[in-house]
Amino acid sequence: MSAAAANSKGKVLLAYSGGLDTSCILVWLIEQGYEVLAYMANVGQEEDFDAAREKALKVGASKVFIEDLRRELVEELVIPTIQANAVYETVYLLGTSVARPVIARSQVAIAQREGCTHVSHGCTGKGNDQVRFELAYYALDPKLKVIAPWRIPEFYHRFPGRNALLAYAAEKCIPVSQTPSKPWSTDENLFHISYEAGILEDPNVTPPADMWKLTVDPEDAPNTPERITITFKAGKPVRVTNEADSTDVSDPLELFLYLNAVARRNGVGRIDIVENRFIGIKSRGCYETPGGTVLRAAHIDLEGLVLDREVRAYRDEHITPVFGKILYNGLYFSPEGDLITKMVPLTQANVNGSVRVKLYKGSLSVEGRWSESETLYDMEQSSMDVQGDFEPTDSDGFIKIQSIRLKKWGATLQQQKKN
Amino acid sequence: MSAAAANSKGKVLLAYSGGLDTSCILVWLIEQGYEVLAYMANVGQEEDFDAAREKALKVGASKVFIEDLRRELVEELVIPTIQANAVYETVYLLGTSVARPVIARSQVAIAQREGCTHVSHGCTGKGNDQVRFELAYYALDPKLKVIAPWRIPEFYHRFPGRNALLAYAAEKCIPVSQTPSKPWSTDENLFHISYEAGILEDPNVTPPADMWKLTVDPEDAPNTPERITITFKAGKPVRVTNEADSTDVSDPLELFLYLNAVARRNGVGRIDIVENRFIGIKSRGCYETPGGTVLRAAHIDLEGLVLDREVRAYRDEHITPVFGKILYNGLYFSPEGDLITKMVPLTQANVNGSVRVKLYKGSLSVEGRWSESETLYDMEQSSMDVQGDFEPTDSDGFIKIQSIRLKKWGATLQQQKKN
Amino acid sequence: MSAAAANSKGKVLLAYSGGLDTSCILVWLIEQGYEVLAYMANVGQEEDFDAAREKALKVGASKVFIEDLRRELVEELVIPTIQANAVYETVYLLGTSVARPVIARSQVAIAQREGCTHVSHGCTGKGNDQVRFELAYYALDPKLKVIAPWRIPEFYHRFPGRNALLAYAAEKCIPVSQTPSKPWSTDENLFHISYEAGILEDPNVTPPADMWKLTVDPEDAPNTPERITITFKAGKPVRVTNEADSTDVSDPLELFLYLNAVARRNGVGRIDIVENRFIGIKSRGCYETPGGTVLRAAHIDLEGLVLDREVRAYRDEHITPVFGKILYNGLYFSPEGDLITKMVPLTQANVNGSVRVKLYKGSLSVEGRWSESETLYDMEQSSMDVQGDFEPTDSDGFIKIQSIRLKKWGATLQQQKKN
Amino acid sequence: MSAAAANSKGKVLLAYSGGLDTSCILVWLIEQGYEVLAYMANVGQEEDFDAAREKALKVGASKVFIEDLRRELVEELVIPTIQANAVYETVYLLGTSVARPVIARSQVAIAQREGCTHVSHGCTGKGNDQVRFELAYYALDPKLKVIAPWRIPEFYHRFPGRNALLAYAAEKCIPVSQTPSKPWSTDENLFHISYEAGILEDPNVTPPADMWKLTVDPEDAPNTPERITITFKAGKPVRVTNEADSTDVSDPLELFLYLNAVARRNGVGRIDIVENRFIGIKSRGCYETPGGTVLRAAHIDLEGLVLDREVRAYRDEHITPVFGKILYNGLYFSPEGDLITKMVPLTQANVNGSVRVKLYKGSLSVEGRWSESETLYDMEQSSMDVQGDFEPTDSDGFIKIQSIRLKKWGATLQQQKKN
Repeated sequence: MSAAAANSKGKVLLAYSGGLDTSCILVWLIEQGYEVLAYMANVGQEEDFDAAREKALKVGASKVFIEDLRRELVEELVIPTIQANAVYETVYLLGTSVARPVIARSQVAIAQREGCTHVSHGCTGKGNDQVRFELAYYALDPKLKVIAPWRIPEFYHRFPGRNALLAYAAEKCIPVSQTPSKPWSTDENLFHISYEAGILEDPNVTPPADMWKLTVDPEDAPNTPERITITFKAGKPVRVTNEADSTDVSDPLELFLYLNAVARRNGVGRIDIVENRFIGIKSRGCYETPGGTVLRAAHIDLEGLVLDREVRAYRDEHITPVFGKILYNGLYFSPEGDLITKMVPLTQANVNGSVRVKLYKGSLSVEGRWSESETLYDMEQSSMDVQGDFEPTDSDGFIKIQSIRLKKWGATLQQQKKN
Repeated sequence: MSAAAANSKGKVLLAYSGGLDTSCILVWLIEQGYEVLAYMANVGQEEDFDAAREKALKVGASKVFIEDLRRELVEELVIPTIQANAVYETVYLLGTSVARPVIARSQVAIAQREGCTHVSHGCTGKGNDQVRFELAYYALDPKLKVIAPWRIPEFYHRFPGRNALLAYAAEKCIPVSQTPSKPWSTDENLFHISYEAGILEDPNVTPPADMWKLTVDPEDAPNTPERITITFKAGKPVRVTNEADSTDVSDPLELFLYLNAVARRNGVGRIDIVENRFIGIKSRGCYETPGGTVLRAAHIDLEGLVLDREVRAYRDEHITPVFGKILYNGLYFSPEGDLITKMVPLTQANVNGSVRVKLYKGSLSVEGRWSESETLYDMEQSSMDVQGDFEPTDSDGFIKIQSIRLKKWGATLQQQKKN
Repeated sequence: MSAAAANSKGKVLLAYSGGLDTSCILVWLIEQGYEVLAYMANVGQEEDFDAAREKALKVGASKVFIEDLRRELVEELVIPTIQANAVYETVYLLGTSVARPVIARSQVAIAQREGCTHVSHGCTGKGNDQVRFELAYYALDPKLKVIAPWRIPEFYHRFPGRNALLAYAAEKCIPVSQTPSKPWSTDENLFHISYEAGILEDPNVTPPADMWKLTVDPEDAPNTPERITITFKAGKPVRVTNEADSTDVSDPLELFLYLNAVARRNGVGRIDIVENRFIGIKSRGCYETPGGTVLRAAHIDLEGLVLDREVRAYRDEHITPVFGKILYNGLYFSPEGDLITKMVPLTQANVNGSVRVKLYKGSLSVEGRWSESETLYDMEQSSMDVQGDFEPTDSDGFIKIQSIRLKKWGATLQQQKKN
Repeated sequence: MSAAAANSKGKVLLAYSGGLDTSCILVWLIEQGYEVLAYMANVGQEEDFDAAREKALKVGASKVFIEDLRRELVEELVIPTIQANAVYETVYLLGTSVARPVIARSQVAIAQREGCTHVSHGCTGKGNDQVRFELAYYALDPKLKVIAPWRIPEFYHRFPGRNALLAYAAEKCIPVSQTPSKPWSTDENLFHISYEAGILEDPNVTPPADMWKLTVDPEDAPNTPERITITFKAGKPVRVTNEADSTDVSDPLELFLYLNAVARRNGVGRIDIVENRFIGIKSRGCYETPGGTVLRAAHIDLEGLVLDREVRAYRDEHITPVFGKILYNGLYFSPEGDLITKMVPLTQANVNGSVRVKLYKGSLSVEGRWSESETLYDMEQSSMDVQGDFEPTDSDGFIKIQSIRLKKWGATLQQQKKN
């Protein structure tokens, strides 16, 4: 195929993984008449980026971009997620969701710089990621066009399964990894890894022990607990120490990677759930979020010590679930995403202090916390022994006033029963 | 003091624990001119009820009532709390809070039956329990009067500390337990035990290993995991099985006590937090909620499989935190408490199915779940391999329509940047 | 075209209005090979149903169904909407939204009874009604297929504007009304009429005086106020009286039609807004909701007298906006719609009483209200003169306890300023 | 009494109104041994400040402070309240609530400057204002002590009614206004006037026509409508024009006073409700909020044009009711009050544009609106005639994906019915 032909339909920046699917898509897009540039984001996943670059060029990419987004992922997405205690459906820590905005933003920036008219990705038509990527693309550059091959009938009818892709790869001389494919899919970044599909689709199948990649099996974790201290400033982790091995890290990325290491070796951070995708399908997923699990627990604990009750309640009811849903549904770049990310820091000004955490064979517990700032916790006020400037008779009035409404209601009920 | 004098101010039904405080209160109330009847609730705490009865009579109670409320505690409070996934400040499972309504209701019923004009309790003036008891009393019988000695200046000035109580006990021949008092306070029922005050008032003091009473230290728990299956019907646990020891229980109380036993021996259910009391003071508390922790995790997991996304989200945002706050603040008997407890079951009709749980050295994980009813989970629909009746092109329209608003916003932003 | 051909693609039940669009659709569907049955709902709109029936048969409908849904519209949709004070975006009273569920339900029932495989409607591809109808169809009968011609390219490309439809009508002998078409669209039922599109698309164009159809111009309304009394039981209107003309109605439908008459002649119920459609487009709409506006105001007023503060707040924050969104977005038949409609009555048990309303030249005011039941309003308790059993010193304790948290916060702020 | 004695208990800054109550309190406080300084806030109420100053000094105040807070009331409280569309219990526009924070803040600042150890006020023990003032005092200066005579038994037992105050006034030579007192109480500021108590305590008594002070009776308002245009920038009113009388005001205070004048002469802004006080008592109140009613309606209208749907929904559900409750309950100076007032402006950046409002005999309507900024409203996109870049088939996918969940639910229901 000539370069002229390649150019006839314009340039596409394809989110490329180096795997079978996106390699076939790359070649197929060229076949459709596009010039294809390959885009890879380093968000902390285990990956041979050099091999992937080489492969992309080999199969026809006119350029390859590999962007290290790890720091912005931690600083701009992971930490605000922790600050908000954001979570989806009570348990899912949003590990895939947080990576999408940084990847999409970087991909759009390069597409604009390189004069691409289109962006493309290898997400399926049933999942959340297609939505997350595309809503971000459209919000960031409303003029960009999106090619989603797995939703284009001529593509998905041509490649109804893995065998068709393998045949195409053979035909087009696309190198194929010799590693046998696993009976599930994964998505990895420095915050987490997800497992879904394949044998996991039966929600009653226990994942095989060798599926879990990041964390050791709790049963194989050390027999003695490990203890670390995490310090927060304005709700952001600023330091992690571990006396046992003299660790003392404060760079956000380093700190996060260290938390990952400690949690991984102690088997902390696995979950196995059925969740509701944005498009309304239920889906079973297994996740490992080692460092994130520890960081979240420590942050929640510290807030108990330093956050005002009503601010905490407001955040818990009005920010936490909303931010979780925004991230999960791919709406980080949206008017409401913009609003909520500006709100989160307003709740965190006083979240200063340190939390001592113990990790042991899959479990995690807090052993103490303190803050050097003046805080709302007041040992004397709290004390059941010391009276401080507290006047017990005040509670009398407090309760009596609260009861006015209840007594009236109680009396009305009694009256109704009589009638 | 003559019986006539005792009667002159009327009858008081005192919530009696058998301990030093309420024994002194009992005697002091008689001294003030009341006839005192002692009330004890069996909510599953470890207690020598016979000894307490004898002691109450010995120190002057005219009658003693010991009520077994364990079944109604489980059926009317614990299970609805689980159904609602209710929690206070993200982590506290409301173990003390759930016991108060059943105790207060029973105490009021007996007070009415016995013609008492007053009820009394030994709660301090700084805590939550005074509020929980009294708001319940007032709602259930607006005419009852409450005597809260720890908020009456002549009482608390007379007894500024434990020594004053001991001296009074010696003077009034009140038997005193020889067990040295622990440097913290506890409150126990079949759902949980709490520890607070004393040495725990410094939030950075790690509780001593021997404080924890219900659960074994995770480090001392068995080296092999234990596995159970919990079955729910309409969101209520109806069966627990354990193949290893052939357990198969279905009575709600038995089932709950069995879950307690399993969780206790595997070290599951400890937390250590700083929370915000209703009266606005921060307070550090440690809690063990063994069976409740397991039951809650299993219930949340099953809801993933069977609950509609929007119903789950509604419940999570609009019922879970509200119910938690109502219970914590002692407003179970209130117009809003009445409303929310009627709402909870409306969300649970389809919560039918079973969850397989593994317990191991303080940690808890779900290994699978299934439902025999027709459910919203559809393996084929969920599958990434099978297309089912799903048309991938539909996702195109879904995303494009979602993006209308975002594109408009993105374009507006770009325009603003240009200007 | 032979009947055999007509049957070859199956039977379609078309929501038919008698207008140009749906008449053309009817003929076009036959042309496509369907047998078409026409469905009309009487939801209180001004319409010549007999003429429409005749026209449908004339242009080829094999059957025509005209269903009087007015009573179920009032009883099942309008009244619950009033009970919930449901509203969309603060001001829109959901007049179109409430009619859709009853229409869709009736259409599906007839489609099932008549063995139709398809249902069809004449809604455009940009509006809310397509969503409301189709989500209802799919929820009520997941197997029914939907034909939405205005979203089928071969249809909308063939009929790019009114002239193309007129030409088709001429060709197919479809009778066309001689009334010149208005420069806006309307949708009418007994709850309201809407105006949108055409000249209204410029949000700064004031609607012409002769657009408003239901209500008189406030300037032309009577110069003396009119007064009525509305009585509610469990939040439902059960009686309306007007001493001036001796009106006394209690049948829900009659009562609602009477409220409409009174409000219409006094110019009450007009609004003009820009709203956000479900698909994310902003749209300008003008609405008249005469009786609904009066009923809503009276219901809100009565709740002040009889509803507990916390129940009212819960409903206002957690039910009112959710129900409004569910109705607006066409999710009445959904798990969450089912949940919320079961919740509404739980809040209304005590909403018993009467409200006296004055209407005058476009404005509406409440002049008094009372309840014959025992209520939470207590004149003596409320009184600033009578002390009742209220102890002013209790407020002291109430305020002091509330201030604990605030003093601590204030002191922390002062400390921070010093540092 | 000597000055030395007056000083013995310290200095009190008394919120003074010039009326009988606070004049008696002033004298009584001196009698109790305090030095009393009188504080008056000009928040726009009708008042003879000079006469009040003279009277305060005459009866013994050592100093008198009269502070003009009108501008800060408008800029810091009224406008944010409008921006948030804040409201209490659906209808009360918070007219009294918004004045309390500015008054309390100014009173505390003067108390600190003058070395007062105490502040005092004349609020009763049953109302909201005592709470609003005192929570503000405590938050702003946790060390200040509060004297609330109407909650001090020796005061309220000495003065059980108006006659006792009159007798005391006669005895102490306190001048008493000859105007007969009205059978209700009022509180006035530039935002509103309230009427409560007295004959209004029966919620079915229609207020007498001569009670309403600010607005003319709608029946007496002009027979021709008046039209104005209000322009907002970032949600704040920045200009009001009236072509009929060539008005063009832009100063916030002037603008607000002009809106008051227009609304007053057209009878706009009256309400009559039963509300729930913070202390749990229901209370009937009548209010006139002329300019505020107009401003609020215009602001809500403009938001329809310019605010993103999800931002609007977030604000409506999570900010509007919370801010209303915070203001009503006197928690403006609190951690949550601080948070919410920082959140409000985040939602208003794009609220730029103008609204044309018509006022007529008690009613208010919007006749059009526009924005000169690039906005989210797009006439072409909205148009039912123009297709723009909208693809109707996209709605197909949108609806089909939304229906996945509903079809599954519908099928489950059908299955359940069969079983």
